[in-house]
Amino acid sequence: MNIIKYSTLVFFICFVGIKVNAQQLEWAEVEPGVWKTTVGNPEKYNLLTASGVAPYHEALLKLEKSNFPLSKTDITTKVVDGKTYLKFPLQKSEQIFGFGLNFKTVNQRGKILELHVDHYNGSDNGRTHSPTPFYVSSKGYGVFINSARYLKVYAGSAVQRDSKNPPKVQDRNTDPDWDPHPYSDGVEILVPAEGVEVFVMGGPTPLNAVQRFNLFNGGGCLPPRWGLGFTQRVERMTDAKGVFQEAKDFEEKGYPLDFIGLEPGWQSKSYPNTFEWDKKRFPEPEKMVKELLQKNIRLNLWINPYVSPDAPFYKKIFPYTASHTVWAGLVPDLKTDSARNFLFNALNKNKVDIGISGYKIDEVDGGDSYLWPDLATFPSGISAEQMRQTYGLLMQRYTTELYQQKNIRTYGLVRGSNAGGVSFPYVIYNDYYNHQDFITALINSGFAGVLWTPEVRASNSPEEWVRRFQSNVFSPMAMINAWASGTKPWTYPEVAPIIKEFALLRMEMMPYWYSEFAKYHFQGIPPFRAMNLEDGFQNIIPAQEIKNNNLEENPYAKAITKEIKDQYMAGGNLLVAPVFTGQKSRTVILPKGKWFDFYTGKYAGDGEVITATPGLAKIPVYVKDGGIIPMTKPMLHAPKTDEKVDIEFRYYGSKPGTYQLYDDDGETYNYEKGDYSIRTVKISKIKGKLTGSISDGQKNKPNSTGKISYKMMTL
Amino acid sequence: MNIIKYSTLVFFICFVGIKVNAQQLEWAEVEPGVWKTTVGNPEKYNLLTASGVAPYHEALLKLEKSNFPLSKTDITTKVVDGKTYLKFPLQKSEQIFGFGLNFKTVNQRGKILELHVDHYNGSDNGRTHSPTPFYVSSKGYGVFINSARYLKVYAGSAVQRDSKNPPKVQDRNTDPDWDPHPYSDGVEILVPAEGVEVFVMGGPTPLNAVQRFNLFNGGGCLPPRWGLGFTQRVERMTDAKGVFQEAKDFEEKGYPLDFIGLEPGWQSKSYPNTFEWDKKRFPEPEKMVKELLQKNIRLNLWINPYVSPDAPFYKKIFPYTASHTVWAGLVPDLKTDSARNFLFNALNKNKVDIGISGYKIDEVDGGDSYLWPDLATFPSGISAEQMRQTYGLLMQRYTTELYQQKNIRTYGLVRGSNAGGVSFPYVIYNDYYNHQDFITALINSGFAGVLWTPEVRASNSPEEWVRRFQSNVFSPMAMINAWASGTKPWTYPEVAPIIKEFALLRMEMMPYWYSEFAKYHFQGIPPFRAMNLEDGFQNIIPAQEIKNNNLEENPYAKAITKEIKDQYMAGGNLLVAPVFTGQKSRTVILPKGKWFDFYTGKYAGDGEVITATPGLAKIPVYVKDGGIIPMTKPMLHAPKTDEKVDIEFRYYGSKPGTYQLYDDDGETYNYEKGDYSIRTVKISKIKGKLTGSISDGQKNKPNSTGKISYKMMTL
Repeated sequence: MNIIKYSTLVFFICFVGIKVNAQQLEWAEVEPGVWKTTVGNPEKYNLLTASGVAPYHEALLKLEKSNFPLSKTDITTKVVDGKTYLKFPLQKSEQIFGFGLNFKTVNQRGKILELHVDHYNGSDNGRTHSPTPFYVSSKGYGVFINSARYLKVYAGSAVQRDSKNPPKVQDRNTDPDWDPHPYSDGVEILVPAEGVEVFVMGGPTPLNAVQRFNLFNGGGCLPPRWGLGFTQRVERMTDAKGVFQEAKDFEEKGYPLDFIGLEPGWQSKSYPNTFEWDKKRFPEPEKMVKELLQKNIRLNLWINPYVSPDAPFYKKIFPYTASHTVWAGLVPDLKTDSARNFLFNALNKNKVDIGISGYKIDEVDGGDSYLWPDLATFPSGISAEQMRQTYGLLMQRYTTELYQQKNIRTYGLVRGSNAGGVSFPYVIYNDYYNHQDFITALINSGFAGVLWTPEVRASNSPEEWVRRFQSNVFSPMAMINAWASGTKPWTYPEVAPIIKEFALLRMEMMPYWYSEFAKYHFQGIPPFRAMNLEDGFQNIIPAQEIKNNNLEENPYAKAITKEIKDQYMAGGNLLVAPVFTGQKSRTVILPKGKWFDFYTGKYAGDGEVITATPGLAKIPVYVKDGGIIPMTKPMLHAPKTDEKVDIEFRYYGSKPGTYQLYDDDGETYNYEKGDYSIRTVKISKIKGKLTGSISDGQKNKPNSTGKISYKMMTL
Repeated sequence: MNIIKYSTLVFFICFVGIKVNAQQLEWAEVEPGVWKTTVGNPEKYNLLTASGVAPYHEALLKLEKSNFPLSKTDITTKVVDGKTYLKFPLQKSEQIFGFGLNFKTVNQRGKILELHVDHYNGSDNGRTHSPTPFYVSSKGYGVFINSARYLKVYAGSAVQRDSKNPPKVQDRNTDPDWDPHPYSDGVEILVPAEGVEVFVMGGPTPLNAVQRFNLFNGGGCLPPRWGLGFTQRVERMTDAKGVFQEAKDFEEKGYPLDFIGLEPGWQSKSYPNTFEWDKKRFPEPEKMVKELLQKNIRLNLWINPYVSPDAPFYKKIFPYTASHTVWAGLVPDLKTDSARNFLFNALNKNKVDIGISGYKIDEVDGGDSYLWPDLATFPSGISAEQMRQTYGLLMQRYTTELYQQKNIRTYGLVRGSNAGGVSFPYVIYNDYYNHQDFITALINSGFAGVLWTPEVRASNSPEEWVRRFQSNVFSPMAMINAWASGTKPWTYPEVAPIIKEFALLRMEMMPYWYSEFAKYHFQGIPPFRAMNLEDGFQNIIPAQEIKNNNLEENPYAKAITKEIKDQYMAGGNLLVAPVFTGQKSRTVILPKGKWFDFYTGKYAGDGEVITATPGLAKIPVYVKDGGIIPMTKPMLHAPKTDEKVDIEFRYYGSKPGTYQLYDDDGETYNYEKGDYSIRTVKISKIKGKLTGSISDGQKNKPNSTGKISYKMMTL
């Protein structure tokens, strides 16, 4: 090796490093408690520009003030060889959460991830439907990397030689506690671009950091009221007759139904798609939609964005599509006006404009073997990689716009999202089907700025059907996805009464769900979220470490950490602990403070581990002390805009409780202009007697509340 | 979107594309049947410069002439956004093999891989111990991308919109044969660098393409004769006394033993390492090595390259190490002279220079959570990514040099390799332990320019112990790796006689193994290889397609292709068909031409599928018609340089046979200077009587052959 060359190289690298660090990372507080810095030369196309969202400034203003939560000098950055290297500090006891919609683990510390939009394939390696580049620390702050690239994340696994806090050096020959993963004092992130924007979210609590992230991304979506009802997706080749039959069956059997999802067969051709109704199966779509709307049932249409040669706009859109095809269909370059016009006009005409309530947007995530390759090119010049990271965002953004233009809310399904998508009214679903992992995803959705449905498809037994259905009711979208199986709620007659009870419970709880989603929108609080964001939870149970000392099976003597990933908070007052097929009982960790059984109001425990044996007919759900759950009657459809519903406020425990009941017209975006009401409910128990009150609804604001009653659940 | 900006972008991309294509890819025949082209500005550091090997020109000259095997205009390249895009054509019926040491599949067509040196983790996704960027086509050519980057490979999965051979457009709604993977007419490869060198290897047969690749990389390694004997690795904390006891036990019990492998405990500290003998466990290493050598037993030492603060050279090497540590140990920058000097001096002193026969180089592959991150930096300026792709190569290269300087051959173990490593005398091993997948890896090793051992470690039953041991005998290194389990060949007494028989069979076959390895070196023919490289095999059995029509379980209606990945060629004359635990019988595909049972000489079949029911005592092995297998007596140690061994030439079938028997001193590199002999054996059966002859050994060349006899196996 040439010595001179070598010195020059070293000098060059140091120089680049110094040059960038010389900027000394200026942190500007761009929103209350949200700081931004710019490293190198960031790309113009990123997650925020792709989604086009603006921070929800008014809501951010209302959060508690926060100071910059990290030591600024401990955040280091450099640009080397066209790539950006970031490092954020980590304390020894710190836990970190987030990095997208993971399915197997909640605590991400120690992980190595490549954040990459993809179908989830069974391991938490960064490839998932929403690989949101945001993490939250148990110390009460968050970090968001605004890049539409595949980011390589070392979440407390890489160890720098010159670290101020180096790990202990051990001798594996003699030290039985030798650790294959020495302590790492930082999160290191590789951005394959010459610069990037970084945001730090202040606390003081982890939930506050999550709120700031969500509000910075525009605030959570507020679904139309009907979106929180019950939905059934029909078998893929179902025709109009079948759709009416489905509606009739639900009605006659007394199961709730708010929208029916049509699968690929609504189109004349699919995979690739014509985006045209099939004239045989659906001869009169407009009439059908109208008749169903009269029954208060909506329709949602499956699509993926790949264009068939038989689509009427095929030739026109051709020049504005990618170099590669997907299922031999064109891939519209959604960063060109022309491609957008052709595609979204097709999605509007004879669909949204005749009353179709929303879309299910499939295959904008992966897998690699279906989508365009990383060496595809797009006319707009956006790289294949950036397009992959944002295609789901773009589809959500522009379909949402179709509805915004009509001032009607939508609530749909999507397979790919990312940071920037928080405010889009879409719920993520997938083809993976592990009940336990579905619950872990529900937990992680709250860190990832997305909604996730543990949808029910088919089941191997009535027991499984019930167990899956019960947790599905306590999720952002209660849905049977029967595109392949044709399963109905009553498919297992022996458990049909239980299914019906829970489907109706979903409807009874609508005032609660709607108010909790309002908190997602106005305060950035995820409606479904991890126990780790709950006060009094963190210190109750330490992560358990299990070590297999058989070196044949475990050559690096890795410890396996057990964590709580099978119970979650549904709104502010409910702790849900799903039971899985085969279980007769399960343990539940109750955070500090008294908790009460949701169904009976009975005392369950306080800061302890309890064992629940609910039987098949129940899913364990617990309510906080002083918790109020607004409930209504069991309905078959969400109430219409002007329909009044009676509300019963159920009250648990003995602590004085308050609840913010949210209301608006349930269907339009008028709430964005202030057309909503928030009424404060107060309940207390004095000498065994319940006293309840509710503040008046604001004048000239929507008010769908009929008769009010209070119910003392804990006797 | 700004229209002017957009046009500019499109123009720019086209321009870059045109500029590069304007070079019109000049293909220079750099070696006989090996063509090179240069795309863009290739990086100076690549797989060939890392390994430092030169083509074996004299051997390449001897191969059949080949024309450029592809349509030059169908190979397209462009450089976009700092990355190189390559496309090579694929015909409809073409199969492709290679892309490194895969464990689950042989035919790689349709795969998407990111070639990345790593521990194999259970799926063929490009992450493996040797992700060799080379593929071979069933049409008889090969393609080699000389890059030390992580290459993204779409091996016939991406579909270009403007393809001359587009796939059929289907309608999934109505077409039951809808294919989720439309036909792709090319292999597309993304090189994350501004240019790359590409080599095309001519045929005319697939084996010829493999030979050219191997010879272009310097030719296969030729192990010392003792390397093809039997080896036992002892439990990790074994001391000198234990080593002598091991040697004594093998001797007394009559099991062969050529070298003993010492695991981390030979060092004073490990993980990270001192590279110093532990004075308590090994007070007199030089004496020990000498005494063992007198018994004809060698020692091999485990290392990984990560330097403990207690290594004597720690402070000196410090400035020449990576920015990140591995197990809190320094990572030497092997591209600096200084780091190499300190590390390899330590590996020489008191080790190689006292007679240590070789190294086992661990953890130069992965996993990610142990090694340096992709954002580590090295003083030489080589990126973390390039270092990861080549660290195993560098360790092999410079340890081999220690031996070359002494004119003594070595034969060791390594966990990471790549193209460029063909000539290094190392065998890959790992922690994965699936017997079936180990065999598939053995098959694929022949396409990847590496050797692989399906080593035996522990077993759950005597049956498993036998089944694993039997196939281990028919592999590049017959080894029990007992570092964790302490297992011995005789651990299962009920099957110990079978084990001993096969251990001794390994020794009896040494003349065959040695001659077959000579073909690896002199002709580039892999000693262990796929049936797909065998004449008469390809057309005998088409890949079977299985389709699960349950859309719940298989939502994309993917077909699963069954292929032959459990039988292989061991040298030119033997077909090995391992039996796996639990199997009482198995099917074997015999290529066209007569085949005979290895043990009995009985006729087995001809171009057909047979069922073998060998019982526990045998592994099915078949010999070609006219096949000659040179065998010797069952020895406990490989013969010394001057030791004469008698050879019995076993002859199978009835076709006149020839065999090239290779010989040299077995220990030095003098064969490189021509100090070897190749003697031609000819056997034929005339009227039921065997006639055998052998050409004289060249004068003044090594000749270790004692008495010669011929044996007619097929009666």
